[in-house]
Amino acid sequence: MSFITIPRDSDFTLANIPFGVFSTSTNSTPRPCTAIGNHVLDLSALSYTVLPKVLSSDASQICEALQKTTLNAFAALGRTARVAVRNAVIEVVKTGSQWQSDVESALVRMEDAKMHLPMEIGDYTDFYAGKNHAFNIGVLFRGPANALQPNYTHLPVGYHGRASTVVVSGTPLRRPLGQTCPPTNSTPNFDQCNRLDIELELACYVSRPNEMGSPIDIANAEDHIFGYSLMNDWSARDVQAWEYVPLGPFNAKNFGTTVGAWIVTDEALEGFRTAQLEGGEVLPYLRDEKRGGKGVFDVELEVLVKPAGQQEFSKVFTSNSKNLLFSFSQMLAHHTITGCAMRTGDLLGSGTISGLDKTSVGSYLEATQGGKEDIDINGVKRKWLEDGDEVILRGHAGSGEGRVGFGECSGLILPAEWGRWTKVTGMKKE
Amino acid sequence: MSFITIPRDSDFTLANIPFGVFSTSTNSTPRPCTAIGNHVLDLSALSYTVLPKVLSSDASQICEALQKTTLNAFAALGRTARVAVRNAVIEVVKTGSQWQSDVESALVRMEDAKMHLPMEIGDYTDFYAGKNHAFNIGVLFRGPANALQPNYTHLPVGYHGRASTVVVSGTPLRRPLGQTCPPTNSTPNFDQCNRLDIELELACYVSRPNEMGSPIDIANAEDHIFGYSLMNDWSARDVQAWEYVPLGPFNAKNFGTTVGAWIVTDEALEGFRTAQLEGGEVLPYLRDEKRGGKGVFDVELEVLVKPAGQQEFSKVFTSNSKNLLFSFSQMLAHHTITGCAMRTGDLLGSGTISGLDKTSVGSYLEATQGGKEDIDINGVKRKWLEDGDEVILRGHAGSGEGRVGFGECSGLILPAEWGRWTKVTGMKKE
Repeated sequence: MSFITIPRDSDFTLANIPFGVFSTSTNSTPRPCTAIGNHVLDLSALSYTVLPKVLSSDASQICEALQKTTLNAFAALGRTARVAVRNAVIEVVKTGSQWQSDVESALVRMEDAKMHLPMEIGDYTDFYAGKNHAFNIGVLFRGPANALQPNYTHLPVGYHGRASTVVVSGTPLRRPLGQTCPPTNSTPNFDQCNRLDIELELACYVSRPNEMGSPIDIANAEDHIFGYSLMNDWSARDVQAWEYVPLGPFNAKNFGTTVGAWIVTDEALEGFRTAQLEGGEVLPYLRDEKRGGKGVFDVELEVLVKPAGQQEFSKVFTSNSKNLLFSFSQMLAHHTITGCAMRTGDLLGSGTISGLDKTSVGSYLEATQGGKEDIDINGVKRKWLEDGDEVILRGHAGSGEGRVGFGECSGLILPAEWGRWTKVTGMKKE
Repeated sequence: MSFITIPRDSDFTLANIPFGVFSTSTNSTPRPCTAIGNHVLDLSALSYTVLPKVLSSDASQICEALQKTTLNAFAALGRTARVAVRNAVIEVVKTGSQWQSDVESALVRMEDAKMHLPMEIGDYTDFYAGKNHAFNIGVLFRGPANALQPNYTHLPVGYHGRASTVVVSGTPLRRPLGQTCPPTNSTPNFDQCNRLDIELELACYVSRPNEMGSPIDIANAEDHIFGYSLMNDWSARDVQAWEYVPLGPFNAKNFGTTVGAWIVTDEALEGFRTAQLEGGEVLPYLRDEKRGGKGVFDVELEVLVKPAGQQEFSKVFTSNSKNLLFSFSQMLAHHTITGCAMRTGDLLGSGTISGLDKTSVGSYLEATQGGKEDIDINGVKRKWLEDGDEVILRGHAGSGEGRVGFGECSGLILPAEWGRWTKVTGMKKE
């Protein structure tokens, strides 16, 4: 179908055409791209050669947007521009394409591409829409009878996160320092986080903004979404336990959040819409008539871990994004019902996506029952992440030539930086 | 002292020299300025005339920064540049100054200046460091014995807020719609917020950033602060009550936060440092040896309200920013102890600043005991803000020629925009 080789089981088939931002050692300017097979295709380069000829309308506006260092300008153009570029790419990479030589000169092998944060993120919000995750956590802390809070099925619970520390896949993450207060203590400790965890999530980026004071109507919410990405919302559970009452997680989350390098569009995922979990009746502003309860995607998710000192990654958990109670459209409608303004590039996380058994969860917290039981990773025992552990999230829908994948969302845990704290506190961790 | 008239009791004496961003009907480009008496002084204009001659070092870098549309570039230059501009301004506006005609041509009457958001805000964080406020709220919800949560005196409790809806003083605010669930309900209502409140706060803006993974040492924290501003963290109490467990306030706050137009510097406030409230021993990373428990400012604060239909503002509450348990330096040190990155322009709110009696509070929630008692505003009774009510926050330290004031932080409440919701829900508010 294409003159570009697409290996079997590639995430990046012609059914996908995700968007990202890359640079190379010979051209360090970050620029928009897509992925096909094992190659990155430089959309900025094509915007000077092929795209002005192939795009049927708004070509100059679109090409200008593709010459920026992030995807914000392109995303702000909305669905029509996105679909036009998607279709143009599929067209020009086809076997027999008259544009083959131009396209080939814009191809970069993935191992030669350095991926960047694809969008400039204004605000980052994290939801808690994984109903099984919320249930699992609720059981752990309050028992099964009161596992879900009374508001849980009525609104997508969420909180504002920290945008300045959202990093792209592959960025190493330093174990945070902070305050913790084990139940046996009367006063808190200064310590490194000793209960470092992952959260397996999907996220979406905002394309078209809404004006402050004007809620996004759920019927149009998808028109405000640029696309979807993997996300790992690293969490310091011991910091969180001490700080989170009454205003929610703060330092437990603000040290880093990793997103995948690739943004997969609605167009690619459209065929994989499926039923969301049942939660009962919601208020009219959250009713998505168009989707009728099928607003989430059937994306298979997995968490792989390479424990420190090991050579191989092992699959630790598998999950699926259909384990969400609310769709991203519902999250957007709820987020803005107060008149909150969304801006192009804003990031919304789904919350941890878990099934109901211990191998289908999206966090160690669930799998180890709050650190009480070990996980076995290829013979290595873990309750939480240790220094040198490396995590990869993966996700895909479909198979073969129709496979639509997200690539990887990875991170390596670096030891805490005690440095001056050793001097100040007299403490040092081995 | 100056050829510019400075009225008695002006907030903007030569002891102040705050920074802001303004435009005029004849030049709509937002540009940096300071305030002197009843005038705005265009620093962008001076950067082409007087400043290159008066600044002794880094003149070209500073002047270039003052030609931007926000204060970010200038703030990022740090304290030395800020002090240089402050001293230059004080010098050139003195009686007998050789620069009088250049300065006069850069003066704009305040009523002719449209003020803008002074900085581009990356992330906005709101703390909860007003100990008396936290105590008052704790008493209301849990009684005096458990008023403060166990973590409260050990760390500045905070949460990430919404940056996209931070607006400058004078911007009208639309009453939000949302979910509320009175205790008598079994399921939530779709309604407008009927418990709309203010929160009287001080805020600071970040100047120099820190790298992700590198906490800000409390000894240097002040070098990361550009200056201070008034802030009104509007709050939808009924929305908050239903949504905030377990992840904190979200929609209850994301519809709008108003900041004052003027950023008052450390240099201006330095002489007004005073003792913070007592909270007991803190961990070493929060110990501010330099300030020795005197890290807050003695700034008198007041809340004035003009109820709908009235002609005059009445003083409703008075407070003082010494009612804080933690200083902004401590907030920065805590915020970044995990390695969280601060960026130039980031905004940190103090939390509501209250005294202990009903007239010295910073919210209606406290003054009306959660809506149980009326406040009397010049003969008009209020439990919460009503449509058409207008609020002004003010703050100042010192008096006479040494007075350092923040100007106003004001907002008018517009009725909720029921629009399409009336159609969807069949509901309409009168």
